[in-house]
Parts: sequence; C-alpha cells; structure tokens
Amino acid sequence: MPGLRHIISMKELSREDIERILEKARELERFARKERSNMLEGSVLATLFYEPSTRTRLSFETAMKRLGGEVIDMVSKEVSSAAKGESLADTIRVVDKYADVIVLRHPKEGSARMAAEFSSVPIINAGDGAGHHPTQTRLDLYTIMRVSCLEGLNIALAGDLKYGRTVHSLAYALSLFGANITLVSPKQLRIPEFIKSDLRARGIGIRETESLESVMNEVDVLYVTRIQRERFPDHEEYMKVAGVYRITGKLLDGVRDNLIIMHPLPRIDEIAPDVDRTKHAKYFEQAFYGVPVRMALLSMLLEAE
Amino acid sequence: MPGLRHIISMKELSREDIERILEKARELERFARKERSNMLEGSVLATLFYEPSTRTRLSFETAMKRLGGEVIDMVSKEVSSAAKGESLADTIRVVDKYADVIVLRHPKEGSARMAAEFSSVPIINAGDGAGHHPTQTRLDLYTIMRVSCLEGLNIALAGDLKYGRTVHSLAYALSLFGANITLVSPKQLRIPEFIKSDLRARGIGIRETESLESVMNEVDVLYVTRIQRERFPDHEEYMKVAGVYRITGKLLDGVRDNLIIMHPLPRIDEIAPDVDRTKHAKYFEQAFYGVPVRMALLSMLLEAE
Amino acid sequence: MPGLRHIISMKELSREDIERILEKARELERFARKERSNMLEGSVLATLFYEPSTRTRLSFETAMKRLGGEVIDMVSKEVSSAAKGESLADTIRVVDKYADVIVLRHPKEGSARMAAEFSSVPIINAGDGAGHHPTQTRLDLYTIMRVSCLEGLNIALAGDLKYGRTVHSLAYALSLFGANITLVSPKQLRIPEFIKSDLRARGIGIRETESLESVMNEVDVLYVTRIQRERFPDHEEYMKVAGVYRITGKLLDGVRDNLIIMHPLPRIDEIAPDVDRTKHAKYFEQAFYGVPVRMALLSMLLEAE
Repeated sequence: MPGLRHIISMKELSREDIERILEKARELERFARKERSNMLEGSVLATLFYEPSTRTRLSFETAMKRLGGEVIDMVSKEVSSAAKGESLADTIRVVDKYADVIVLRHPKEGSARMAAEFSSVPIINAGDGAGHHPTQTRLDLYTIMRVSCLEGLNIALAGDLKYGRTVHSLAYALSLFGANITLVSPKQLRIPEFIKSDLRARGIGIRETESLESVMNEVDVLYVTRIQRERFPDHEEYMKVAGVYRITGKLLDGVRDNLIIMHPLPRIDEIAPDVDRTKHAKYFEQAFYGVPVRMALLSMLLEAE
Repeated sequence: MPGLRHIISMKELSREDIERILEKARELERFARKERSNMLEGSVLATLFYEPSTRTRLSFETAMKRLGGEVIDMVSKEVSSAAKGESLADTIRVVDKYADVIVLRHPKEGSARMAAEFSSVPIINAGDGAGHHPTQTRLDLYTIMRVSCLEGLNIALAGDLKYGRTVHSLAYALSLFGANITLVSPKQLRIPEFIKSDLRARGIGIRETESLESVMNEVDVLYVTRIQRERFPDHEEYMKVAGVYRITGKLLDGVRDNLIIMHPLPRIDEIAPDVDRTKHAKYFEQAFYGVPVRMALLSMLLEAE
Repeated sequence: MPGLRHIISMKELSREDIERILEKARELERFARKERSNMLEGSVLATLFYEPSTRTRLSFETAMKRLGGEVIDMVSKEVSSAAKGESLADTIRVVDKYADVIVLRHPKEGSARMAAEFSSVPIINAGDGAGHHPTQTRLDLYTIMRVSCLEGLNIALAGDLKYGRTVHSLAYALSLFGANITLVSPKQLRIPEFIKSDLRARGIGIRETESLESVMNEVDVLYVTRIQRERFPDHEEYMKVAGVYRITGKLLDGVRDNLIIMHPLPRIDEIAPDVDRTKHAKYFEQAFYGVPVRMALLSMLLEAE
C-alpha cells in the first residue's frame, strides 16, 4: 500500500489496509505449500532477535526462503554481546547495510519505532516488550478469514487478558470488522479498563465473564491464551485458576459445529491433548498461516521500495 | 522406495533397501563435489537438534543446499527454551507447517518414532539417545562400499562396544552382507550379549578378543570408536585401557595393503596424528561421504511424497 | 591473482595485489546493493567463528548470498563443544569436505596459518588473536579509496595504537601508497616501537602526538579506535583518557571539508552521536563496504581454484 515503509503496530491500519494484506496472503499461500517462487530472489532479510521466539523467526525465515529470498541471522550469542555494548541504533545502521528488510524482536517497548527512525530499510516489529506484535495479529486475522469468517464474528478471548498483548491487538483489529467480543478471564487477569473503553467507543459489543463454560456454546471462535504461573503470588491459587480455564474435550460438548479454537502457541497445558484430534482445533493450522501472512508483508515491503 | 516415509532405524531395512540408498548416493556424489544441482529447489529442510552434533547437522545442511534446497534451523538457545515448556509433539506439529522434511536429534530414546507419529512430513532420525542413528550407519556402509568392498568383509570393531550405538547398527547392517566381524574391546566395554546372539543368529562369523594387535593384520576394515573417560571409575584404569586401544603408525606395520581405518569422529586421541598421513586413514573421507548419503535420503524422501 | 589460495595476512601483499582486490570490489559493488548475481551459485562457504564477531560474519554471509552462494555456519554452542575436544586441524579436515571456502575466526594467533596447512579449500582469516585481520584492512582501504583517495593520504590513527591490530595492519598497507601517518594516542597506548621503525623504514612520514585537537584540522582521514577500560589499572585514569579522545561535533570545527571519520565498529562512546549526522561520519558506510570487499575475496578465491 502507498507508504508502507515499516510494520510497527496495528493501530494505524484501516480496515482496507488489513484487507489488502490478507488478500495478498491469500494470493501467496500456494507458495507456502508446494509451489516454487523466485519473487524475492536477490533480496536479503536480517532477523534480529534480542529474545528468542522460535515460531516467529522460523516462519519469517520460511516465508522469505520459499519466495526465493535469502536470510541472515544475528544469532543469540552475538545479540547478547551486542546488547552489552553497541546501541540498537548503531546495530540497525550496520545491518541495514547488509539487508533489504529487518525483522526485529526486542524486550523493550518502543524499540521497533526507534529502529525505524534509524533504518534505511523497512523494519518489521516482531514484538517489542509490552508493546506490539503486529504480525501475530495479522496471522490471527488471516486464520479466522480462512477457516471461519471475519465479518460480525462472535469470539471469546480467554485466559490472561491483562498482560496478553496478542489479544489486545486482536481485539482492536476485530473491532474494525464489527465483532462481538466476550472477554473470559479470572478476576486477576481482566483486560485493562482503558482497552475496554476504547473498544466500546468503536461501537462493538463487549461482554465480560469469568465463566468459560457459560460462553462455550455461543461463539464461533475461542481464542485461548496461556495463564502464566508467574502472575500469581501462590501456587495453589494458580492451580485453581489454570484448572478452570483449561480446555478439554469434555468442554466441547454442545459447542457450535463450526467453532474454531485458536492459540498463539506455545501451549503448555491450557488445552488438553484430546482437543487436538477434534475438528475444532485450529492452532497448528494457525501456525501455518504465519507463513503466507509473512510472505505478504515481505513482498509488499520489498516491492514498495 | 515404496513407502519410504521416515528414516527412524536401520533394523527394518532389507539388503535391497540399503543397496538402493547406496546406489542413489553414488549417483548424487558428483553434486557433493563441484557439480551444481537444483533437484530440491523449493524444498525446505528443518534441523531440530536438541543436542549439538556439528558434523551431522552440517552435512545434512550441505546436502540440502548443494541440491538447491533451503534449510531452516532451530538454534540451540531456542531448542532449550522449547525443551522447558512445549512438548516435542507440539514442536513437530508447528515445524511440519514450515518445512518439507525434518531432521531430529534428541537425547531421549524413541523420540524420533514419536515425532514421526505426529509429523505430516518425513522425519529423519539423526540420533535419539541410546537409540538409533541410522544415517551414520548408512554413511559407514557407503564409505566401505566406495573404498573397500561390502561383500564378505573382514572387519574389526574396536573400542567401546558396549555403549557405542554406531557399531551396533553397523554390525547389524553388515550382517546382511555376510561379514566376518571381530569385536575388539576391553572387558568392561564388551558388546551386549543379546546383540552378539542376534548377530550369530543371522549366520555370520563373530569373534571376540581384547587384543587389538592380534587382529590388525587380518582385517580389511578397522572401525575405531572412542573410549570415554566417564566409563571408568578411576583415571588410572582408563589410561591403561586407552593406551592399549590407541592406533599408532607403529601398529600399522604388517597390516594388509588395502586396510582402511574408519572413525565416526570427533576423535580425541584414539588415533595418533601420524596415522593421518598413511593411505589407510579414511576417517576424513568418511565424513565427506556423509554428504552424498544424506543427499540420497533427502531426495528419496522428498520425491516419495 | 596467481597463487591466491588463502587470505592469511596483509604483509605478503604488494601494492598491485591490493589494487587488484580493490578493483574487483569496485566491479562487484553493484551486487551489494540491488542487482542480482548468480556468480557463486553452487558454492558453499563455511563460517567457523570460535569467538563472536557479528559484523564480520554477517558481511561475509551477505557477500556470499548476494552472489548466489550458500553458507553453512558452525554456531557458537557447537564451536565451544568442539573447542573442548576436537583439534582445529580435525575440524578443518571435516569442514573442508562440506564447503568450498572457510572463514575462520579464532582467539589464538597463528590459527589461520595452521588451518591453511590442513585445509584442502581456501581459508580466509577473519581475525586470529593478536594476529591478523586482513579482510578488515582491505575494507578500510576500500572505504578510503571510495570516499577519499589512497594516494599520498594524510591520516591520523587515534586511540589505542598499542593493542589495536586493525590500525597496525592499516598502517602497513597505507605505507605502500605513500601516506603521511599521524599517530595519536595516550602515552600508555602508543604504537609498539618495532612497528614504528618498520613503517619509517618504508620511507613514509610518521608523526606521534598525544593531542587529538592539534591534528584534527590537518588530516583527510581520522581513524578512531576504541580505548578499552581493561587497559587501565584504575577507573579514573581511564575516564580521563577516554574523555580526551572522544570525538564530538564541537571538535569538528575547522576541520578540512573533505575529512572523513572511520571506525571499525562497534563503537561505545568514543564518537558522540552528534557526529553521526555530519558529512564527515563514514563509519556506517565503511561497514557497508565490507560486503563488496568480501565479495571480491570470495570470488577471487573460488575462481582461482
């Protein structure tokens, strides 16, 4: 799209922007399977991961290579030695001399925007602290588009809605498509008040509950996130909550036929293995859709130049 | 070959299966040297090494790239963070969305077979604990085929025959070709009794001795393995044994003209440097033969799909 | 050039040798930007870094990939496990079976020359301890050639001239082009006496001073190196020296219009950020020039075979 220079956050995107990306992903999906492409031959992607994120890194790498491009990677040990001394601004101004596009993952909020200011090539934010992780949101949207329907969706976001930036970004994006959102979380992990107001101001239906069971039968999409042990002061309380929000095969009795269950992965035990075998489980397919979505972003950024 | 879906162990292979692989390797060997190939263009190999094994990983990577394919690699730090939380089954079901074939190295016996159950793409076992390491055996066989002769071979397996899975697999495979096997090891590191019975049941000649010197002049192949310090309760005993099983130039007086010395590498000091310069030393060439053999496996698996 | 087998040190090169490399780099520079090349298709580079050096590794990788070649990398964890046991000579004799050229970085002086003795493929020294780092010197020369002029240059080498092998190599190389060299360092970090004599014996102008300010207005190139905290017994003394040798925007008042400032990077705080925005700052461009120079070396070594 005109002016697509960097991918930093979801907020600045319009519905049209998002749709254009999803269409592009749909067009490129065949190259994520068997078909060969040399579309990005001669282009080099640099991956700069200041904290590990296997799925994100590997799916970018796969996307780039399946389109015929090359990848250079700053491996973890180098990153940590860089972290000790050289500033991010300097690292960016060196790596942009080697690569045509940079994917950055950094623990500090705002790093991606700062990197974009110094970079002569496009920066893709692959997560910066409590900040954004816009490519995850795009692949979530793409998954919904592919196996369900984005328009007027009934979706439950379940688990840790306080710290889970993934669900925050997704909720904002879905509001552009008129979703009805049910927020399901323990009291301690409710979505921040200001996000709830923002979403309501966008005119979409928002409901809040602590009971997962009560909503299971009413939604098209159940988006599960991990509840981390570290969020709870004592182990017992954690176990109680984790048990209640665990998705099991039994819990799927009576759900809509077309219900899909999503999860950003890795999962630990918030979804029981017996769910994997049901037609509702779409979290591994969701991982696959990361490839065409990242193909779309890479090709749009590199062609835009 | 029909039904070649995964490479998990050597045991299920017939002599014909092995021969087909070795022939394929022979056919592809020229691409391991100078000639270019685009045979696997558009295919992606994922390397998942839960413990480091440089030679194995690099030779797979070389094989894939020299045939025009791409490689994505889960680097060690990511693997260890994955190991903490995500199950191997989940990791496999994500990585098989990115890659067309997966090479797995894992410390736990049985991991490769388990991975194969969950994977939608072929799994190649690159060693799973005390379990199998079938691609090493194939390259050992290929080396013997290329620089000696597989049929009716006189071979001595020397060193640690108790824990060395490499020599166990090789002995089973050679039994299909009617070898005469001499087992040379210190008392503490003899081959397990059940393997010896198995081999005898296959009708091949088996001899056991503690004296390396006594067999040096009678064999076509001397396969040396490392005797690890950790196998011995005290240092002195280790040193005594290690000294006796060390191959030196002097020990090569009077050996057959066509004797070849093999070693899976890395070697520490079980072969003296003065042996390297003799025509008998084939262990570095053996490392090279890993490339055509892995080319053969990758091309057979990817074409079989 | 005839007999170009390995790249071990700068000392054995004549002016003509250097000029041939720089010309080749100039010819290939367009491939370091947008233009595609398949010049090295089918060739494999192995990077063996026994200590991390991000810029060097990434620029070699970029150079190789932008010319259509492949790269295999021994990652840090593997290297350290190798370092424990296997000798460098053995590692080289395995890796040369996979790759067509090897880039080696090793903490021990003389490692590169030793590796070259065992290798069947060309070795490029990417730094061996207090020894050489010849590809850095070449890219320094190339930078000077591209943005200034190699002939009869007035250059100041500033900072740590005692331990900085980068400036030693550069000084030797520049002496072939008749430079006037001003050595600017604190007393504790003066250039070794024997290097100074060597340079004088080559008939070039050498001046020594502790005052950076006094030379700023008289040179075409200011080459800055880092003064490491570890070189000083106490912190206060370090701070005093570091402060005096810090390049700031203010220090640039009255310098020659064509002055260029170079630095091998990473920089910590020896150059203030306000210098980055001036036209004199060329250290990031210098990083870029590493790519065409390494392209030239790789293509000359691989064609020479």
